[in-house]
Order: sequence, then C-alpha cells, then structure tokens
Amino acid sequence: MFTLLKILWIIGITAEGMTGALAAGRQRMDLFGVAVIASVTAIGGGSIRDMLLGNYPLTWVKEPYYLLLIWVAALATVGMPFLLENFRVVFLVLDAIGLSAFAVIGTEVALRLGHGFIIAVVASVTTGVFGGVLRDMLCSRIPLVFQKELYASIAVLATCVYFVMMWLGASEPVTVVVAVLIAVNTRLLAIWRGWALPVFDYQERS
Amino acid sequence: MFTLLKILWIIGITAEGMTGALAAGRQRMDLFGVAVIASVTAIGGGSIRDMLLGNYPLTWVKEPYYLLLIWVAALATVGMPFLLENFRVVFLVLDAIGLSAFAVIGTEVALRLGHGFIIAVVASVTTGVFGGVLRDMLCSRIPLVFQKELYASIAVLATCVYFVMMWLGASEPVTVVVAVLIAVNTRLLAIWRGWALPVFDYQERS
Amino acid sequence: MFTLLKILWIIGITAEGMTGALAAGRQRMDLFGVAVIASVTAIGGGSIRDMLLGNYPLTWVKEPYYLLLIWVAALATVGMPFLLENFRVVFLVLDAIGLSAFAVIGTEVALRLGHGFIIAVVASVTTGVFGGVLRDMLCSRIPLVFQKELYASIAVLATCVYFVMMWLGASEPVTVVVAVLIAVNTRLLAIWRGWALPVFDYQERS
Repeated sequence: MFTLLKILWIIGITAEGMTGALAAGRQRMDLFGVAVIASVTAIGGGSIRDMLLGNYPLTWVKEPYYLLLIWVAALATVGMPFLLENFRVVFLVLDAIGLSAFAVIGTEVALRLGHGFIIAVVASVTTGVFGGVLRDMLCSRIPLVFQKELYASIAVLATCVYFVMMWLGASEPVTVVVAVLIAVNTRLLAIWRGWALPVFDYQERS
Repeated sequence: MFTLLKILWIIGITAEGMTGALAAGRQRMDLFGVAVIASVTAIGGGSIRDMLLGNYPLTWVKEPYYLLLIWVAALATVGMPFLLENFRVVFLVLDAIGLSAFAVIGTEVALRLGHGFIIAVVASVTTGVFGGVLRDMLCSRIPLVFQKELYASIAVLATCVYFVMMWLGASEPVTVVVAVLIAVNTRLLAIWRGWALPVFDYQERS
Repeated sequence: MFTLLKILWIIGITAEGMTGALAAGRQRMDLFGVAVIASVTAIGGGSIRDMLLGNYPLTWVKEPYYLLLIWVAALATVGMPFLLENFRVVFLVLDAIGLSAFAVIGTEVALRLGHGFIIAVVASVTTGVFGGVLRDMLCSRIPLVFQKELYASIAVLATCVYFVMMWLGASEPVTVVVAVLIAVNTRLLAIWRGWALPVFDYQERS
C-alpha cells in the first residue's frame, strides 16, 4: 500500500476506534466490551469488504499489531473522554480523514481484484461506513451514518474522484492525494453547512 | 442458472429491495441509507449463504448490474410509496415469489457444492430469510420473519418439495416449477388464513 | 480434534443453543425463530471466526448432524423452560464449560493456521463470545456479555493458560484440560463473587 495512504489508514482506525469506545461507554459496557466495540468499529468495514470479495487474508490477520494500536486508543478514550469533547474539531477532522482514506483503500482493493466501477463504489462505501454501522447495531441504535450530514456519500465521491483522476492519467500518489483532499474537505463543509441528503420519511397510515 | 429461476430471482431481489426501502423510510433514513438497506435486504441472504459455504465469487460481485436494478427499485419506492399500499396484494405475491425462488436457488447452490439435505435446508432458509433479518437488525427491530405467518417455513417446504421431485426423477425445470408453485401458494394461503407456527412465549418470573 | 475437547464442544453448543432458545422465547418468536436463534447462538461465534480467518469448510457444514442436536436442544427448551430455571446452577456450569471449550478450540484453530498470540486471542474471544453477541443483536438487546461478570475475559484467560502450558512443554491433552479447568473455575468464581471488569460509563453532558 502507498505509504501516505497507510498513514491515513492508521489515523482512520485510531479515530474510528475512539468513536467505538465512546459508543460502548454510552451503553455502560465493561473495558472488554470497549475494546471489542472499538475493534469492530475500526476494522469491521474492511473485514466485511474482504469477506464479500473473498480477499484473504484480511489486513489485520496478516498484521495483527494494528489491533494493539486500536486497543490503546480505546483505553486512552476511557481514561480521557473529556479530550474528545474539548478537541471536538480535531476529532471531526481525524474522522473525516479516516472515512476518506477508508474509501480510497476500498476503491483500490476492488480495482486490484479486477472489478469495475460499481463494485469499487460498494467496496468504498463498505470500508468507509460499515464499521460505524456495526458499532451502532452492537449498541442497539439505528445506524447514524444514514441519518446525518453527508457521510456515506463522501465515500462515493472519493471513488468518483479516483476514477476521474485515473482517467486523466494521473499517477497513483496524485490520485490518492486529490481524492482524499476533496473527500475530507467536502465532509467538513457538509458538517459546517449542515448539508444532508433528502430523507425518506415513510410512516404508514394507521 | 435455469432461465425461469433467474427471472423469479430478479422479481425476488426487486420485491425484497422495495421492502428494505420502506423499512428505511420508517426510520427516516436519507436516500443513501435507503439504497444500502434495500441492497442488504435483497442480496444479504444470498451473500451470507455464500460466505458460510465459501462459494466465491458472490453473484452480485460477478454481475454487479443487478445492484443498479435494486437501487432503481428503491428510489421508485421512495417516489411512490403509495403504490405499495394500493397494490398490496400484488406486492405480497411478488414477495412470495421472491421467497420461493430464493429458497430453490439456495437449495441448488448447496446441492451443486455437494452438500446433503440438512445443509440444503440451511442454505434455503439463509437465502430466503436472512436478507429480511439483516434489514430488521439494521432498523433495530426484532426480526419480523420469526413472528408472523409461515415465512421461513416456506423455504423449508420448497427444499422438501425439491428433494421429493428429484427423488421422483423429475427434470430440473419441472422440479423448480413445482417447488416454486407449491411454496408460493402455501405462503399466500398462510397469509389469507393466518396460518402460523406455535409461538414460544417465555417471560421470566420476576 | 482431541476427543475430550469435542465432548466439551458438544456440551457447549447444546448449552449455548438453549440460551438462544430462551432469548427467542422472551421475544415471543415462533418455533422456527427459536431454532434459528439457537443455531446462530451455538455456532455463530465459530462461523464468524472461520469466515474472518478464511478457514473453510466450516465445522457444521462438514458435519451437519450437529445442527440436529442444537435443534433438539432448542425444542426441549421450549417444552421444558422450567428445567432451566430449576437447574440454574447446572446450566451455569454447562455454559461455563462451553465458553471455555470454545475459547480453547478458537486458540487451537488460530495456531493450526500458523497465527501468533494476538490472533489466537481474537479467535478465542470470537468463538467464545460472538454467538451470544449475535443472539442479543437478533433480539434487539445490548450484548449482555459486555455488561455482566467476567465473561469475554475468561476466553482471554483460557488462551493465556494455553500458551503458558505450551511454553512449559506440556502435551496437548494436558494443556487443554488445564486451560479448560482454570477457565471454568474462574468463570464460576466470578459469578459467585460478582467479579466484573470496571465499566466505562460515558454520558454526554446535555
């Protein structure tokens, strides 16, 4: 994997692990539950992608020391939850970087396996979003990612930018940097401006 | 795959995708969530079956344009939910056809991989029912399929009919048609007459 | 698989299947739902482990008659739920044996596939705990295993004892027996004394 992308991926699993730890804390889970929810949030999306595409072995099975990083991040969150509150902006930026890196990595995995645009979009969204979906399912919540500001759509945007840059003949590093930059900025703009997709509100007539 | 079965499968993923879109609308999800829940409902059962049996590549990974069909069906549901209400009977018939086709396809996959009756039943039920189970889990509901009229049992019935027809020496097209017809009719009869399995109601003494 | 371990595994899937049947009964599911939840609880953890590690075919796919055992145990639970109440102590012991056997089996699978300590811990916890996590997710509950007395930690303990015994040069049967005995006893002591991990209770300031 391209080095810059690996660094962004590490930022991503750390930030996602911390959101998992907070969600576990909201449900008053024990330290073990905190570590499990943090792990599932950080690497669950990539694991589902690889199981769907038959892409074995999974990243964290090959390089298990990344799990230690997630567990340390989870325990740090337990010790200092106020950090996340006081540095909310920093945290939102890290989360946006993680989402964008996950989306680009998902796109690259799909392309490397010989798939086209549709499967690249599915791999991108699965990697970027399904860790958070699993986190919310384990904590008995309606998945947040489908109800708030542009989130899953950012993954699709990253994949589209990636394909456009490739089509323009850009090298891989340039493609990755441009895709991540555009995705991160759009995500932050979406939070700041409250951009969201239209909602489908369907209540049966009783 | 036998052509008629493929047509029934397409009816099935369309009908299941629409139930997923409605469930997402009940939770006020955005359009992206609607597309994701519709996809998971339509192809989640078959994907779990294939991951459990190690049957790679998955159908929709090999032929991704079926995903477009599901997304179109989901968006059509968002635009015209009243259609589903006004044509409730049509919709129940399509859903019954989908369930029966999924069950027969699951049975065929298990047999093609060399498995026997028990695994054929598991593959049939997984294909027919687990898309709906995932839909309900993602929407934080107790899975409906285990609480209402005969539903999962219809998948078992389809598999049993399939085995009886094979044992009688019928050709594959005849076997498929008879299994689907009996399953669809039993499902519709079950809805009409309110047939259901006994319920296990266990409340701990407090 | 070592014979004693297989016997303990059979005790484990039976006990876990019964907890699944009770959880389904609490949600007033039909007999089919009871069988499905019992199966997922009993073999879901091992299935997730094998799908994550790419360890095909899954045990129950190779030897499907174990599913029949789980279904009989589930139906017996429906017929005689009072048994589980009146023999609560017996049941807790069987559950502790199951958890410990699952953890040791998970450890052995990881080692056989050439993995080290971290992945052995993940495989142990996944095998021991995720059946119950899936059960609780299917029944729309916050996973119990992360909120009560030492449970998931028992799986880690079993893996640690396993590694220490191997490092001491003990034979496989001795290693398995010692790991299971220590894990079962610690679990029962934890229930009796109310031992639990510290809880992370994080409620946002409103």
